[in-house]
Amino acid sequence: MNVEQIQKQLRAFAQERDWEQFHTPKNLASALAVETSELLEIFQWLNDAQAISIKDDVARMSKVEEEMADVTLYLLRLADVLSVDLQKAVDRKLSLNADKYPVDKARGNAKKYNEL
Amino acid sequence: MNVEQIQKQLRAFAQERDWEQFHTPKNLASALAVETSELLEIFQWLNDAQAISIKDDVARMSKVEEEMADVTLYLLRLADVLSVDLQKAVDRKLSLNADKYPVDKARGNAKKYNEL
Amino acid sequence: MNVEQIQKQLRAFAQERDWEQFHTPKNLASALAVETSELLEIFQWLNDAQAISIKDDVARMSKVEEEMADVTLYLLRLADVLSVDLQKAVDRKLSLNADKYPVDKARGNAKKYNEL
Amino acid sequence: MNVEQIQKQLRAFAQERDWEQFHTPKNLASALAVETSELLEIFQWLNDAQAISIKDDVARMSKVEEEMADVTLYLLRLADVLSVDLQKAVDRKLSLNADKYPVDKARGNAKKYNEL
Repeated sequence: MNVEQIQKQLRAFAQERDWEQFHTPKNLASALAVETSELLEIFQWLNDAQAISIKDDVARMSKVEEEMADVTLYLLRLADVLSVDLQKAVDRKLSLNADKYPVDKARGNAKKYNEL
Repeated sequence: MNVEQIQKQLRAFAQERDWEQFHTPKNLASALAVETSELLEIFQWLNDAQAISIKDDVARMSKVEEEMADVTLYLLRLADVLSVDLQKAVDRKLSLNADKYPVDKARGNAKKYNEL
Repeated sequence: MNVEQIQKQLRAFAQERDWEQFHTPKNLASALAVETSELLEIFQWLNDAQAISIKDDVARMSKVEEEMADVTLYLLRLADVLSVDLQKAVDRKLSLNADKYPVDKARGNAKKYNEL
Repeated sequence: MNVEQIQKQLRAFAQERDWEQFHTPKNLASALAVETSELLEIFQWLNDAQAISIKDDVARMSKVEEEMADVTLYLLRLADVLSVDLQKAVDRKLSLNADKYPVDKARGNAKKYNEL
């Protein structure tokens, strides 16, 4: 994914429409939360089996893709506004997670997932 | 951002720990919503001016970057599990948005932002 | 539940601490979203069977009750700040729902739950 | 607000439509998060001043009331399904908050709101 290219397009899109005034970090964080809830909404009444087989449901998957696009766009726009380097942030987090959940301790007990 | 490389790392991370059972689309959509709320939480009591000046606050920005990394990781993991091509989904959405909000109509009235 | 009594306590609590400046409708709506995500977080990695048997898990239920209390408190505080009569709003919505999902049509097909 | 009466209505509503299968604690917690995000969406692009003056906007307030009703309904339904006494949970939390934020320390510094 070409993050810089997408951010450039989003920046131009906002500038052309005089929408930069709305794109404060707080508003964008809010919009990101709202969009992820719209994504969650698609899954919320499905049981485990239905949620797993959603890949075969063309209509639902089209909606899923649109909501995931919205999440991605707000995430990249927020990163741009705050000058956050997502690749760097992700690399740091992946390294933290590897330390936090060593394979020999994490395997088979799923402690992270079963504890409060 | 190297999406495929990150997804490969996340896939290996889950496999090594036998955590794939937890990574259903529904659970990942839930986790994504929870992480965006943790990001929003950082901004929630700030007024407009404080939220804009957050870039100068090293401690808060470090927290922001960590939460944005979490959001990115769950988004990419969900895209992997559902075989969604995020770049393609984003391109389609950008094109839809350009049609939906033509510059000459959108500029200066911010209709999208002020209407219900 | 004595809504007016709780709202009176919340109002006094905020006034005594000079916290009314933070309790704008926007901030409270944000806080409400954040608290519901903390509640959701408790359930997010559980499968259907585990989530249903959560009632027997004293430690988790104590956490659930605390988060549900937070959700209730922000909901009542927001209603107070916006002068919303929740009982009236609920009665109206229950009546709308009864019209929208008549028993004979809704029973057995779960259309609401299975459609996009 | 007559919680027991509303819960009784919601219970009958679900039973009559054979919808109890969908009302697992996990699904209801999800629905609650989704509804609070729909509430937040109304405020997300408003600046502080606009969000405060929303009380004078009849159309928006009607939408706010409907979303707050939805939040209330899912909250009460979840409490019913999990046998949670909301009044008791709220009383406990109010007492915890009073201990956590004593007036003399909390007043004027808004520590809770300004710290990470």
